[in-house]
Amino acid sequence: MSLDTPAAAEAAFYAAFEQGDLERMMEVWAPRADITCVHPLAGPLVGPSAIRASWVEIFSNEVPRRFEVEPIWASATEETAIRTLYETITLPLSHQRFPALIATNVYHRLAGQWRMVLHHASVIGPSELPPEIVSPTPSTRH
Amino acid sequence: MSLDTPAAAEAAFYAAFEQGDLERMMEVWAPRADITCVHPLAGPLVGPSAIRASWVEIFSNEVPRRFEVEPIWASATEETAIRTLYETITLPLSHQRFPALIATNVYHRLAGQWRMVLHHASVIGPSELPPEIVSPTPSTRH
Repeated sequence: MSLDTPAAAEAAFYAAFEQGDLERMMEVWAPRADITCVHPLAGPLVGPSAIRASWVEIFSNEVPRRFEVEPIWASATEETAIRTLYETITLPLSHQRFPALIATNVYHRLAGQWRMVLHHASVIGPSELPPEIVSPTPSTRH
Repeated sequence: MSLDTPAAAEAAFYAAFEQGDLERMMEVWAPRADITCVHPLAGPLVGPSAIRASWVEIFSNEVPRRFEVEPIWASATEETAIRTLYETITLPLSHQRFPALIATNVYHRLAGQWRMVLHHASVIGPSELPPEIVSPTPSTRH
């Protein structure tokens, strides 16, 4: 798995998501206490432990998923890359295609590797996501 | 209006939002063609013209609003600052307090001033925002 560029890190993130591969998913994330993940309609999760637990829950549904990603906006310096994009999820087995989400992903370059430090995903429009895609219980603020 | 630091730019953004001050709001944004704004539940708006039009619409409802902002995550280098936070809106006249939103705001330092280049706001939970807070017609992907 290459994390040599922000684009490679992005590809690794969505590949791990498609494959439900927890170890690869957590390799994309920076090993830092303040990494932050906002799943659609959910509250923020902070830190590797909480974020890992959310992917365990998401990946417990083993339905095959495919992602299409389309850039909206991007910014990169030597140390920080920010990529806002559409995420469109399809379930090939049932030929379902869900409305596009918007995600802002932030990567930092750490020891030459681009690692995710923020994932902020959100829905367009009032619809809820089906529970097979994300955790069915949005966190509340606390 | 000071934009000397990312925190000052953030304060200026929310002050303009509270005051419904279109000119100050657009001063916070970088004068660049690719600035991007995602209002809660809406699709992305790209460029000063589309973003300005959205604030005209939002500010056309002149109900006083107050924002409370609480940091979730932040990152800053010499050139780029990213701040993810809770936004809680209250309407003092009617004593209404809305559920917290999550926003990721990105600022770039341009000629010594920190200017907004991305605002990505989203809801927590399935509820829709009341129309007096945001544009009532979420954009669709196109």
